[in-house]
Amino acid sequence: MIQRVSGGCCNIRSRQFSITPCLYLRCRRLVSEAKPTRKEFVKQKEKTVKESFSRQAFMRTIGAEIVSLEHGKIEIRLPFQPGLTQQNGFIHAGVITSMMDSACGYAAMSVNPENCDVLSVEFKVNLLAPAKGESFVARAAVKRSGRTLIVCAADAFVIQGGDEKLIATMLATIMNIPDRSST
Amino acid sequence: MIQRVSGGCCNIRSRQFSITPCLYLRCRRLVSEAKPTRKEFVKQKEKTVKESFSRQAFMRTIGAEIVSLEHGKIEIRLPFQPGLTQQNGFIHAGVITSMMDSACGYAAMSVNPENCDVLSVEFKVNLLAPAKGESFVARAAVKRSGRTLIVCAADAFVIQGGDEKLIATMLATIMNIPDRSST
Amino acid sequence: MIQRVSGGCCNIRSRQFSITPCLYLRCRRLVSEAKPTRKEFVKQKEKTVKESFSRQAFMRTIGAEIVSLEHGKIEIRLPFQPGLTQQNGFIHAGVITSMMDSACGYAAMSVNPENCDVLSVEFKVNLLAPAKGESFVARAAVKRSGRTLIVCAADAFVIQGGDEKLIATMLATIMNIPDRSST
Amino acid sequence: MIQRVSGGCCNIRSRQFSITPCLYLRCRRLVSEAKPTRKEFVKQKEKTVKESFSRQAFMRTIGAEIVSLEHGKIEIRLPFQPGLTQQNGFIHAGVITSMMDSACGYAAMSVNPENCDVLSVEFKVNLLAPAKGESFVARAAVKRSGRTLIVCAADAFVIQGGDEKLIATMLATIMNIPDRSST
Repeated sequence: MIQRVSGGCCNIRSRQFSITPCLYLRCRRLVSEAKPTRKEFVKQKEKTVKESFSRQAFMRTIGAEIVSLEHGKIEIRLPFQPGLTQQNGFIHAGVITSMMDSACGYAAMSVNPENCDVLSVEFKVNLLAPAKGESFVARAAVKRSGRTLIVCAADAFVIQGGDEKLIATMLATIMNIPDRSST
Repeated sequence: MIQRVSGGCCNIRSRQFSITPCLYLRCRRLVSEAKPTRKEFVKQKEKTVKESFSRQAFMRTIGAEIVSLEHGKIEIRLPFQPGLTQQNGFIHAGVITSMMDSACGYAAMSVNPENCDVLSVEFKVNLLAPAKGESFVARAAVKRSGRTLIVCAADAFVIQGGDEKLIATMLATIMNIPDRSST
Repeated sequence: MIQRVSGGCCNIRSRQFSITPCLYLRCRRLVSEAKPTRKEFVKQKEKTVKESFSRQAFMRTIGAEIVSLEHGKIEIRLPFQPGLTQQNGFIHAGVITSMMDSACGYAAMSVNPENCDVLSVEFKVNLLAPAKGESFVARAAVKRSGRTLIVCAADAFVIQGGDEKLIATMLATIMNIPDRSST
Repeated sequence: MIQRVSGGCCNIRSRQFSITPCLYLRCRRLVSEAKPTRKEFVKQKEKTVKESFSRQAFMRTIGAEIVSLEHGKIEIRLPFQPGLTQQNGFIHAGVITSMMDSACGYAAMSVNPENCDVLSVEFKVNLLAPAKGESFVARAAVKRSGRTLIVCAADAFVIQGGDEKLIATMLATIMNIPDRSST
């Protein structure tokens, strides 16, 4: 049962596991007699992240998919498509950045309290090698999770013939915001 | 008439206008009796930039177009499309970044010598407001043009009902490289 | 007369001028019958910024001074000193960055409500030319001021024989926080 | 015996170990009958890095020292000093950035060929926690080493009572340039 708590904030907490509360934000909290266990929370979070990702039409447009998801970690994969290339036939830096941005955002969301959405504040990308190959993977992890801001790092790799090669790296700042969709 | 100069480098220069040479790179130079005038050079550059942009399949995929181009400055526009959105129906940060990245790259290319391509080394984006509106424009300008590296800045705006609002800003490092397509 | 308002927030507002409130933060507000005029506010802000800057011991260590301050804009100057150099005798990139960081922070503080301090969340610096000359100036301006975050841009210049040359540029994210010193 | 090789470039190479050559740059090479072994090279590099660091007057000013150095990795330490603080008595973000910048530069230099100097092109810093404690350490590592550009990452930690806490992280682009000091 979910209720809006006026003037309140995301504040699911439990002694079993620590969650960054998005204090300051008019989120809602789960009001229930029993706090969720860590396992229940992670399960619920996985559902929330995947549901939000499925609403990112742009991820469908470029063909990106979540291939693994843990607490604070995510992996997104993308097969090569000619429609995603730049002038030399490599995947456009903006596509790789989009994957890494979504990966950082959902890594952050995976450690947020329930009913909080995430917003990219800023990111920095270094492009290390041409995005030329069969498929591409972005792996993001939470580096530091604060009340309002979450700093994530992501690496992107090209996969060719079973080998992986680092092609880009991102350092991103994500902000906790109240979920706009779950009113 | 274009000839490959073995071991040489882009070194079109003219007293009428200064161009950053991509020394150190095995580009080719125009070998002709008369140096091009600034007007001829800018005209040629415009053609080169537009031709390269037209080979960026990803810009077609997202519906981005060059709307203006000067020496060191470019404007790229993109209409709203549902296929480009994130979880809340706004344009994905990666799409806005892609426009700004292409804009920075081509602003850089517009001041490069002939037969040099450009490569994004890195960029940093601050997302300032939701990308929610009818269309979007990215304006990039060269901030400093060096022999090997060109630093560009870009701003992105949403256009809604004739009004513009700043939604993102980029600071990017671009590298001069020999053109791979014009062998 | 200043009073702590429990659970409240910086919320000095006036119809005459708009100020970004640091909502969400346990700042205090001025409780007075009459709201300050814009002129009074700017005067007060100037005092607050200069007082805070004077507490930055590191600015004294490197010899940096505020040379001008407006609403959302600041200029900090630094004379050359041999103790600030890197291996080639130029001013260390970290010194120029320190000036620009302080400049961005105080540009942000100048548009904040009273009794809010600022915190650098992150910044990105492009170094454009060697910091070699008589003196150095950093000019920062607020690019976008939000409730929690303020994005600022700064440029740094070398001054030599009366001429200025751009040597570095910063894009920074600053966060509003309650003032820790004025309890 | 060191000789200038006209039009040449840093190109110490050996089958035993791979070194990124700073092609394109008018560096000089060691001309000797026998190529150095990896051990000799690393020893020589350590000497070069430490000698260059000792010429960074600013590192002395802030009290920073190299505490460990490997191929592609470095650690720099700094004790707390009141002269390095910002308005709240924490170490100024610019000081922590200076340490991380020098650390990234020397991590890059440690994998460069002989007689190449390094230049910071750009860096991005996320500040994760207040720099409040007894001493501070920056650890940098080469993330990708290219011919012209080297991308490094650094983390900074506060050390307090034997415990370490992450306070900042940097992603930096370094450029190989010919050594100006060893003419």
